[in-house]
Amino acid sequence: MKRINIGIIGLGTVGTGVLRVLKENAVVIRERLGAELVVKRAADRDIVRDRGVKIEPGVLTTDALEVINDTDISIVIELVGGTTVAKDFILKALEAGKHVVTANKALLSTHGPEIFKKAVDKGLDVYFEASVGGGIPVIKTLREGLSANRIEAIYGIINGTSNYILSKMTHDGGKFEDVLRRAQEKGYAEADPAYDVEGIDAAHKLAILINLAYGTNVALADIYTEGITRISPLDIKFAKEFGYRIKLLAIAKSVDNSVEARVHPTMVPATHPLALVDGVYNAIHIRGNAVGPVMFSGLGAGMMPTASAVVSDVVDISRNIVKGISGRLSPFACAPDAVRPVKIKDMALLEIPYYLRFLALDKPGALSKISGVLGAHNISILSVIQKDRKIGGAVPLVIVTHHAVEAALACAIEEIEKLDIILDKVVRIRIEDNLGTVL
Amino acid sequence: MKRINIGIIGLGTVGTGVLRVLKENAVVIRERLGAELVVKRAADRDIVRDRGVKIEPGVLTTDALEVINDTDISIVIELVGGTTVAKDFILKALEAGKHVVTANKALLSTHGPEIFKKAVDKGLDVYFEASVGGGIPVIKTLREGLSANRIEAIYGIINGTSNYILSKMTHDGGKFEDVLRRAQEKGYAEADPAYDVEGIDAAHKLAILINLAYGTNVALADIYTEGITRISPLDIKFAKEFGYRIKLLAIAKSVDNSVEARVHPTMVPATHPLALVDGVYNAIHIRGNAVGPVMFSGLGAGMMPTASAVVSDVVDISRNIVKGISGRLSPFACAPDAVRPVKIKDMALLEIPYYLRFLALDKPGALSKISGVLGAHNISILSVIQKDRKIGGAVPLVIVTHHAVEAALACAIEEIEKLDIILDKVVRIRIEDNLGTVL
Repeated sequence: MKRINIGIIGLGTVGTGVLRVLKENAVVIRERLGAELVVKRAADRDIVRDRGVKIEPGVLTTDALEVINDTDISIVIELVGGTTVAKDFILKALEAGKHVVTANKALLSTHGPEIFKKAVDKGLDVYFEASVGGGIPVIKTLREGLSANRIEAIYGIINGTSNYILSKMTHDGGKFEDVLRRAQEKGYAEADPAYDVEGIDAAHKLAILINLAYGTNVALADIYTEGITRISPLDIKFAKEFGYRIKLLAIAKSVDNSVEARVHPTMVPATHPLALVDGVYNAIHIRGNAVGPVMFSGLGAGMMPTASAVVSDVVDISRNIVKGISGRLSPFACAPDAVRPVKIKDMALLEIPYYLRFLALDKPGALSKISGVLGAHNISILSVIQKDRKIGGAVPLVIVTHHAVEAALACAIEEIEKLDIILDKVVRIRIEDNLGTVL
Repeated sequence: MKRINIGIIGLGTVGTGVLRVLKENAVVIRERLGAELVVKRAADRDIVRDRGVKIEPGVLTTDALEVINDTDISIVIELVGGTTVAKDFILKALEAGKHVVTANKALLSTHGPEIFKKAVDKGLDVYFEASVGGGIPVIKTLREGLSANRIEAIYGIINGTSNYILSKMTHDGGKFEDVLRRAQEKGYAEADPAYDVEGIDAAHKLAILINLAYGTNVALADIYTEGITRISPLDIKFAKEFGYRIKLLAIAKSVDNSVEARVHPTMVPATHPLALVDGVYNAIHIRGNAVGPVMFSGLGAGMMPTASAVVSDVVDISRNIVKGISGRLSPFACAPDAVRPVKIKDMALLEIPYYLRFLALDKPGALSKISGVLGAHNISILSVIQKDRKIGGAVPLVIVTHHAVEAALACAIEEIEKLDIILDKVVRIRIEDNLGTVL
């Protein structure tokens, strides 16, 4: 039986998971592939620590180049992360004629074109299923399973940490800071959580999804990115009253001749399946022009789910190796010469419903003044909640608008914040209430 | 640019959808594939009817053999359905050196091995994504996306008609017969609905999923199949009271060294995502030993969703053709020589919780007699509902058991039905309350 030798760079959590999956599922993988996968070399700075999985003598090395330059190795798995040495390792592996599997969304969303061009030039494969949605095969779905579709929209819950925090705030209450601290204690959030809670990680992943869906190379700077750090328990509560849940959504929508590309806290109908995806689960809702709405959910991170995606990629590439081919799928998802810029829709032109919360002096005429400003900017009101009346005191006043233009809303908010009855910055949360499905 | 010629046999709803998808999405398909897909010939008995999509002159024919024997054609799409002429067409197409795409679950679940063997012998591909779950790429997910996993369980809502009827009964009330009639009027159920409501269609699809998951050829006769025709509004109502919804589930579970393979009405926790999949939507919940729980949902039937799957298969095969290969994926999902029988678990040995409804005379001691028989068969009771007391009259008495052995339960039911306080057949519905995820 044919043997395919693999090298791994980075034996942290996911790398250890890859070793475990290759060992525990060796029989079924061999039967499906018709070939044997062998870990020939694995590099990590720490080759002493017991990872709880048996590693053959001679496999471990502290030198990534020993993996890259091993002429028996056909596939290099990069699990170092980050955008510096990881990039170097991947380019060197391609240069040395190795196919590459990576989970590195930060790298692919910033240096994808350079890496992919190198792969195409060298006639090699770069697979990256684990970069988005952990074990959920969403990359495969976009590149292959839905290849007959024009993609109309993607709505993703693709950052587990943010979703865990928002779910906890929704179901158990608590302020963002407190819930974050407990998430950190439980290992669901990093010591430096900015990457996750500021929406950056989700934006990286969204860039990858957009590139696959639209055959382009979107710049990260073109993706509007807003995190969850300013979501308050009050907004969680009011969202419920209006029949919504707050989720950090990564959204891509094809509208007219442009693509909306945005990551921000979003109110979604409480009955929509996305609203029910709680905790560290991820979900990606895709609307194709033929298939209609489809949704995929599962664990978006973790040792074994991520390793599932990495090893399935290795099997995929190995199926090519068995057949003596490469480049069956372009890493760009479309033929390299068909990759072209798409127009990213200016956020100022966004036209959706909004949730607005004002801290207003409870004086007669307050609502009238606010709605007057909104009306002057052509923003009409769908509903209003004003609770806990304290005549002469400060009360939250919440408005949900009909579809409004983001730029007009920004002007209106600026004006409203100057009103003497307004005591604090206006809170504005975008709403997606037409996800296009009853699924 | 390379042209790949396609032939279609059967221009009904799905065939027409395939023509539409190929036309409407021609640009994006060409860019993704790097080649052009051309419908060279299409056969149907009716070549006169206006299908609302432009067909080039000379394409239509009433003779399927003209498609099969056209030497320019590389891929034949079989959309005739059924297990007689469709089988003949597919075997002839393979004999003529054509790759095949089909949506025909009845054929594949009965004659799959013969067709697949022919394909392997001839070095050709048979793809069948549309055979299960309409546009949801679940076949691809099992063969490729989760290839690194041992599949622990599959729970599928894979018959849209049954799910539509159960959803209507759950949300709007009504008897099975009445809801079925209205579904027929709306085109959601066939004039002869047996195939759908008796669970046969779901069993065909489950056979395909099991074969892919476990590298085997399960016999349809080995799949326990029970439809939804005897589900009453009363059971729908009691299910709600116990916190369940009734779904027609297709279940495969790997337990010890055997596989549970069964299709039947199932009570699932009302909060589980499967319980929320309503109407004609399908959903497949898969648990892999590495990935954990993943769920996929979408439209399980219809012109365009099914065409999405068919054309995505055509793109997949065409990607092989572009690279000059075939047989990259075994139609068996594992290497042909690794296909082997699996032991299907005897239903008598099934051990799950059960819902039992008795029509009992409302006399003191009724519950005691029933629970006495259950206890004698080692079946313990989780909860009981007895409502609408009519002393001396007939009242429904509902019991949910702890895990019980199916054979023991059958004996107990037989004994209970002989009790003089029991006025009707006992209703028994299986419960799955441990789907293995909080997703």
